[in-house]
Amino acid sequence: MSSRKSSPVTLENINPKVIKCEYAVRGEIVMHAQRLQQELQAKPGTHPFDEILYCNIGNPQSLGQQPITFFREVLALCDHPAILDSDQTHALFSSDAIARAWQILDQIPGRATGAYSHSQGIKGLREAIAAGIATRDGFPANAEDIFITDGASPGVHMMMQLLLRSEEDGILCPIPQYPLYSASIALHGGTLVPYYLDEATGWGLEISELKKQVEEARSKGIAVRAVVVINPGNPTGQVLAEGNQREIVEFCKEEGLVLLADEVYQENVYVDDKKFNSFKKIARSIGYGEDDIALVSFQSVSKGYYGECGKRGGYMEITGFSPEVREQIYKVASVNLCSNITGQILASLIMNPPKVGDESFESFSAEKDGILKSLARRAKTLEDAFNSLEGITCNKTEGAMYLFPRLHLPQKAIKAAEAAKTAPDAFYARRLLETTGIVVVPGSGFGQVPGTWHVRCTILPQEDKIPAIVSRLTAFHQSFMDEFRD
Amino acid sequence: MSSRKSSPVTLENINPKVIKCEYAVRGEIVMHAQRLQQELQAKPGTHPFDEILYCNIGNPQSLGQQPITFFREVLALCDHPAILDSDQTHALFSSDAIARAWQILDQIPGRATGAYSHSQGIKGLREAIAAGIATRDGFPANAEDIFITDGASPGVHMMMQLLLRSEEDGILCPIPQYPLYSASIALHGGTLVPYYLDEATGWGLEISELKKQVEEARSKGIAVRAVVVINPGNPTGQVLAEGNQREIVEFCKEEGLVLLADEVYQENVYVDDKKFNSFKKIARSIGYGEDDIALVSFQSVSKGYYGECGKRGGYMEITGFSPEVREQIYKVASVNLCSNITGQILASLIMNPPKVGDESFESFSAEKDGILKSLARRAKTLEDAFNSLEGITCNKTEGAMYLFPRLHLPQKAIKAAEAAKTAPDAFYARRLLETTGIVVVPGSGFGQVPGTWHVRCTILPQEDKIPAIVSRLTAFHQSFMDEFRD
Repeated sequence: MSSRKSSPVTLENINPKVIKCEYAVRGEIVMHAQRLQQELQAKPGTHPFDEILYCNIGNPQSLGQQPITFFREVLALCDHPAILDSDQTHALFSSDAIARAWQILDQIPGRATGAYSHSQGIKGLREAIAAGIATRDGFPANAEDIFITDGASPGVHMMMQLLLRSEEDGILCPIPQYPLYSASIALHGGTLVPYYLDEATGWGLEISELKKQVEEARSKGIAVRAVVVINPGNPTGQVLAEGNQREIVEFCKEEGLVLLADEVYQENVYVDDKKFNSFKKIARSIGYGEDDIALVSFQSVSKGYYGECGKRGGYMEITGFSPEVREQIYKVASVNLCSNITGQILASLIMNPPKVGDESFESFSAEKDGILKSLARRAKTLEDAFNSLEGITCNKTEGAMYLFPRLHLPQKAIKAAEAAKTAPDAFYARRLLETTGIVVVPGSGFGQVPGTWHVRCTILPQEDKIPAIVSRLTAFHQSFMDEFRD
Repeated sequence: MSSRKSSPVTLENINPKVIKCEYAVRGEIVMHAQRLQQELQAKPGTHPFDEILYCNIGNPQSLGQQPITFFREVLALCDHPAILDSDQTHALFSSDAIARAWQILDQIPGRATGAYSHSQGIKGLREAIAAGIATRDGFPANAEDIFITDGASPGVHMMMQLLLRSEEDGILCPIPQYPLYSASIALHGGTLVPYYLDEATGWGLEISELKKQVEEARSKGIAVRAVVVINPGNPTGQVLAEGNQREIVEFCKEEGLVLLADEVYQENVYVDDKKFNSFKKIARSIGYGEDDIALVSFQSVSKGYYGECGKRGGYMEITGFSPEVREQIYKVASVNLCSNITGQILASLIMNPPKVGDESFESFSAEKDGILKSLARRAKTLEDAFNSLEGITCNKTEGAMYLFPRLHLPQKAIKAAEAAKTAPDAFYARRLLETTGIVVVPGSGFGQVPGTWHVRCTILPQEDKIPAIVSRLTAFHQSFMDEFRD
């Protein structure tokens, strides 16, 4: 039957941008981990560990974090509003969740949670998000500026699609960066213009570095369109200081660059001397308005204390764009009709959680604080563990969900990696996986100063697992160094 | 403060592919309708109608269609599994919904409905979908071939992204077509190669026309990569005959083209002499396997009798691609991490609805049959209404959710449209909206034989509204003809 001359689709005739795109967070090491997991399930005892510990991705609930009860109550009630009138419902759900579900349903035309919504998201939910932003920042926010999306990623893709015309258009990205940015720029055919964060100053962002890289890119004929800033940082864990943010805003204004602010970790700050400030708040507090700076803020339901990755909710707040350009952004959003309503509802909830006096407030606060305090403890324990290891230095995780320790690898290990035709950090990560079951992502997936080596490790395993992780990691590292010490 | 020389983003410096992209289903006429709706709300009585009737888009629940109870029960339970153990839950939910929720949760690692899943979707749900396909077709289906997506649209975009390298790559699309295809091809920088459906034979798809258009495109240097077939047809409502489908499969095999089968209306067939057959079933029944034809089938939770547009669920089944190319498709899927879990669960449910013997089976069947029979009646009534109007001819809606009547407009109306600088069908649609509040989409948004004029109108308004729609439409059309009759 197999008479076709050749497959019509081959690696040689597909879009080369697809080939070029890389996404390390679900890359080779993770696929290898999945194979090991299958082997463990099929034949327990075949590896020197009982389970795979996925520290490769910010996916808290996959590692046992429980969802926030109030949020899930509201989602369930909006999914099946038919039960809202039953007496039993009052026994199963908190009264403020029931009230919130009614309030949300009343904002949806015809209470139809199964209908396509406005392509920017349900208006009432966007108004709730805008109100939440205004409360957070102390500056007004507008529902017309909100585009609710299936997580932050589709918003990032939309902006790349809008801004990138060819390889001669560039986007300034931090190095190290979250590889969504490099992947999206590759898929949309633009150029990533790197700016390096300074590991020596806790991954500091220097304006002089931004300026240098813009000039260098321009001298090569690249039109730099935007700057990506990830705050709190992924993978670095750095939280920007207010003064630094002000400099970044001034830089964007001066250079006519769009500021793409990845603010999905805005609730994840673990140190007392730092605080999250949105870039919009910073810009407005300088006195810059719509005419001064084009600014996009990305937020997601996947991170924070909620960690609702599977719900795929998020939004972008777009300010400083002309009405004609905004119409184009709306048009692109409309081609996909709308984001999922469950995610839309959740995006409105995270920006408007229970307040003092609400029935759920106390239990909600206990759940929230429990998660955030535990994350802070885990970050500190893992940071100390990495720093106690020979040849490893690790900056503080001030925020976000990651550690990005530097591996000062011995020459012998680097040679062994070369012989295995792999990067030294990938070599280390693979050895770590095969010895301990711990999955981390090599720094090369995020970018790093050439000749330096890192891995990204999440702080997300549950606390009862942390001691075992630390001891497995320590034992592995010691034997790795014993094998390769110069 | 407004010292910026000029906005960094203008219509002149954004991606021209974005500018080129058009999506009529949420285009100008719909934005005009939204303005009228706001005017009606602000000042009732300012227009000759009380409400806007959105017949522009296949969005059943926005017009009052109720969701299927069983599906919503399962979704609510999976959103808030904490209630699964309570006694009250048994009073509120059917026992098979509870059992199904447990079964689904057991397929999710850690029962974590809030975690990112495998980038193709949760394995157990993909197995359920594959089992549903196998039952439907009588041929095996493989969970590894399933990519669960946020509705059908992201799947279509992924395939366009994969196949289109430049303007010299072409995709054969029916004319008229659902404008997602033209929009996606424009955004990905390819060329739409049209093939015309024959209105005179009930929108028949002629292989000779496909061949002619492929040859013509090739003679212009276009590499034709794939054929889009929408069955049941959107906007045409045609259901393909089995013999015709066989010819299409043979054509794709011979020409080495990927068959992109839009099968989202597979449950929407309203005539006794036609039946939905998947293209995979047709290919396999000829005896063609993986090596013979590359085939992608798109399915969605938004259509059928369920109409769950807001949940953004769907899948594509990919067969006949090499492992290396499939890896690239997986990589692109992984950049967006995964589709929303609620939509994933719903996609598994629509492919595995309650069966004889399940507690919900009877009520489920009553809901399903009620919706489908009502849709069939509405299709017939509206078809008859259009056909009774002077100068309008309308093919039968055998399936899907639309009528696509042809307007044989008088010269005077065409001249009036010219004077108003608009296409004659857009002129008609705008007049219809402003007189009756009924929103239809001009045929030019779907493509049509030059010099012919159509509108697309959904069959989705609830039955109690149909008589009023028919009489408003009839009165409008008579007065339109009185004004413009040559």
